[in-house]
Amino acid sequence: MSTNQVLLTRRAEFSASHYYYVEGWTPEENRRVFGKCANKQGHGHNYMLEVTVTGKVDQMTGFVVDLKALKEILENEVVSVYDHRHLNLEVPEFKTMMPTTENIAVAIWKRLEGKISGATLQRVRVYEMQDLFADYYGEL
Amino acid sequence: MSTNQVLLTRRAEFSASHYYYVEGWTPEENRRVFGKCANKQGHGHNYMLEVTVTGKVDQMTGFVVDLKALKEILENEVVSVYDHRHLNLEVPEFKTMMPTTENIAVAIWKRLEGKISGATLQRVRVYEMQDLFADYYGEL
Amino acid sequence: MSTNQVLLTRRAEFSASHYYYVEGWTPEENRRVFGKCANKQGHGHNYMLEVTVTGKVDQMTGFVVDLKALKEILENEVVSVYDHRHLNLEVPEFKTMMPTTENIAVAIWKRLEGKISGATLQRVRVYEMQDLFADYYGEL
Amino acid sequence: MSTNQVLLTRRAEFSASHYYYVEGWTPEENRRVFGKCANKQGHGHNYMLEVTVTGKVDQMTGFVVDLKALKEILENEVVSVYDHRHLNLEVPEFKTMMPTTENIAVAIWKRLEGKISGATLQRVRVYEMQDLFADYYGEL
Amino acid sequence: MSTNQVLLTRRAEFSASHYYYVEGWTPEENRRVFGKCANKQGHGHNYMLEVTVTGKVDQMTGFVVDLKALKEILENEVVSVYDHRHLNLEVPEFKTMMPTTENIAVAIWKRLEGKISGATLQRVRVYEMQDLFADYYGEL
Amino acid sequence: MSTNQVLLTRRAEFSASHYYYVEGWTPEENRRVFGKCANKQGHGHNYMLEVTVTGKVDQMTGFVVDLKALKEILENEVVSVYDHRHLNLEVPEFKTMMPTTENIAVAIWKRLEGKISGATLQRVRVYEMQDLFADYYGEL
Repeated sequence: MSTNQVLLTRRAEFSASHYYYVEGWTPEENRRVFGKCANKQGHGHNYMLEVTVTGKVDQMTGFVVDLKALKEILENEVVSVYDHRHLNLEVPEFKTMMPTTENIAVAIWKRLEGKISGATLQRVRVYEMQDLFADYYGEL
Repeated sequence: MSTNQVLLTRRAEFSASHYYYVEGWTPEENRRVFGKCANKQGHGHNYMLEVTVTGKVDQMTGFVVDLKALKEILENEVVSVYDHRHLNLEVPEFKTMMPTTENIAVAIWKRLEGKISGATLQRVRVYEMQDLFADYYGEL
Repeated sequence: MSTNQVLLTRRAEFSASHYYYVEGWTPEENRRVFGKCANKQGHGHNYMLEVTVTGKVDQMTGFVVDLKALKEILENEVVSVYDHRHLNLEVPEFKTMMPTTENIAVAIWKRLEGKISGATLQRVRVYEMQDLFADYYGEL
Repeated sequence: MSTNQVLLTRRAEFSASHYYYVEGWTPEENRRVFGKCANKQGHGHNYMLEVTVTGKVDQMTGFVVDLKALKEILENEVVSVYDHRHLNLEVPEFKTMMPTTENIAVAIWKRLEGKISGATLQRVRVYEMQDLFADYYGEL
Repeated sequence: MSTNQVLLTRRAEFSASHYYYVEGWTPEENRRVFGKCANKQGHGHNYMLEVTVTGKVDQMTGFVVDLKALKEILENEVVSVYDHRHLNLEVPEFKTMMPTTENIAVAIWKRLEGKISGATLQRVRVYEMQDLFADYYGEL
Repeated sequence: MSTNQVLLTRRAEFSASHYYYVEGWTPEENRRVFGKCANKQGHGHNYMLEVTVTGKVDQMTGFVVDLKALKEILENEVVSVYDHRHLNLEVPEFKTMMPTTENIAVAIWKRLEGKISGATLQRVRVYEMQDLFADYYGEL
């Protein structure tokens, strides 16, 4: 059964602040496009991250990927950088890019790509809240 | 990062009544095929809808789609028509089509198709309850 | 450890239709008080029920109450009567009493009271949806 | 059945930023007591609020409280003030009081007390996340 | 509307024990690779299973698949065999294959393949817990 | 505001195996009383624990209890002893007492009582699964 391709997904969480604001626009334009999110004092969310990898199931261990290693990568590459942080002010990639759910999914993909040995990153899903989430599958 | 294709999903809810009954069948046949759902007094559910769109992330705003516009479309095209309604008796498309989870997903797709400017409808998922849901990706 | 008083709660679910309408009122009054719930075609919910009993833990079995018996009572006294039914039209107690979340909790209490041998009914909680629920502790 | 005392609970949500920091302490002391929460750039959460009221069920309507009125009070007194805000910097009561889950529960109680006509405020529960919540029952 | 291809998903649950241990390895190697899961006394989970089938919506019934039949197949082929069992010791396929989430998904696929008349098995998802799940789409 | 009494609840999880079997009974009696749970190979659950403490809110920190200390106590006194264990075979208190949800709640109370400095243990809630949970408030 070693040749089966299986997808494995692991969740992680982080709590962070953000706001949406384009410096080149007037406050009114920002308010019109971003609504309450344009408040530069910031607001925050309990983000939920789902990382999916795909690979062949190892015949001996039954694993597609070493779960402890995967957990450690998520912790080191994402959670330790984003958790209890202000995304706009403290996370490098969001100094030049709006920390929307879409962009956070892309940014997490870039942080994880090539770091998970033995399996292929397939999807990054980010929930800003239960009612809103973004999926990124890499450049197609 | 403007060229990244990202999927964005937004949830909405509506509470509605329905029943399953084929007029050309005997009550016994209806009972055999539809079980308790054949009760023509109707019963109801808290339906949960997930609408997924796909598109390129706008370089300035970081959005695939204007979230306020998307929310408004879901409200106007679906929630205001289905919520607190009897699907069989009050929603036009279910006068000639059984309001199963499958058909509700198809019907919501038809209601939304072409209405979401700047992004492409990718999937409609409808949960009748946590244990049962249908996905429709449009005509393939 | 036989003398410990422990509370045990079990969940059950039922899907039903209802509407809110006072016959002695005008349609406008009903609409003003009950909003969309006044639509007499009805609408529905996936109700969730939590029944809590209290009692001493049996020294031999470790149970406060026989779980299979409790499940059977919930099935016979509540779920089989309410599930896939129109509460206003098909359930006797709601012919003279509005099927609000509050009244459903009280009605379920009356259906269960005295039926659970060896333990005491402590609370009935009914969720109409995740965002709205009622608790009844019996007449105090 | 008009004399039954029933508890009714309604949920609401708000997303906000906060940090924990005692100005009279050194950064090291703050870090030791508050850990990552001491980061003054702030971080945030999707807070979930459950407000419970108690009262007699109205014989005519079947309600303990007017749900539309209750929803409006939660919106006006809490959500519109806390949602998409930085609690420490933008909400008056948290300028002199740490915005911990405990204190937020107490503060929401004070905002709601005496505002819900016809029913009695019984409990305010605030979830900072699913794993952590505080309950306040008023001064006993 | 009979020609629409829709995916339908149904959930089921089972509670089971398992452990991870390669007999040819030393206890130290097992501990290093499998961590706490190497404890041969076993531990357990509330597994959640999601089975997705795809097919055309029947013009008359509105169904992709007979839901009662699907539920019965899940019960007979999976739940009755896995529920309240020790997977390593009591379920045949796990005597020669590690009962990891990945392998359980593959094993359930094999149990269901060809059994669901009128629809095509599309995906088997198994949650070991909310934070970890595996998807299998069959041999590609 | 230092004199407000607030309840704080924290969740923790553990995955464990168990079975229900009275040695002095015949296999048939065990099967009749405990059903599938009488299988001595064992089965398992993802248990969820909610521990509630009550106390006055500290005027300076805004806390009822030091959250890091509370988390550590739950980890040391409960999770490290129960997680990935077979309750009947590896946890001392369940060698002479059935590991039912009721008894697990009582046992966790005894493990935590007197260990949480500065606050009073108020309730231990244990979920065996979402549909079944037990509450213990100590000896009354």
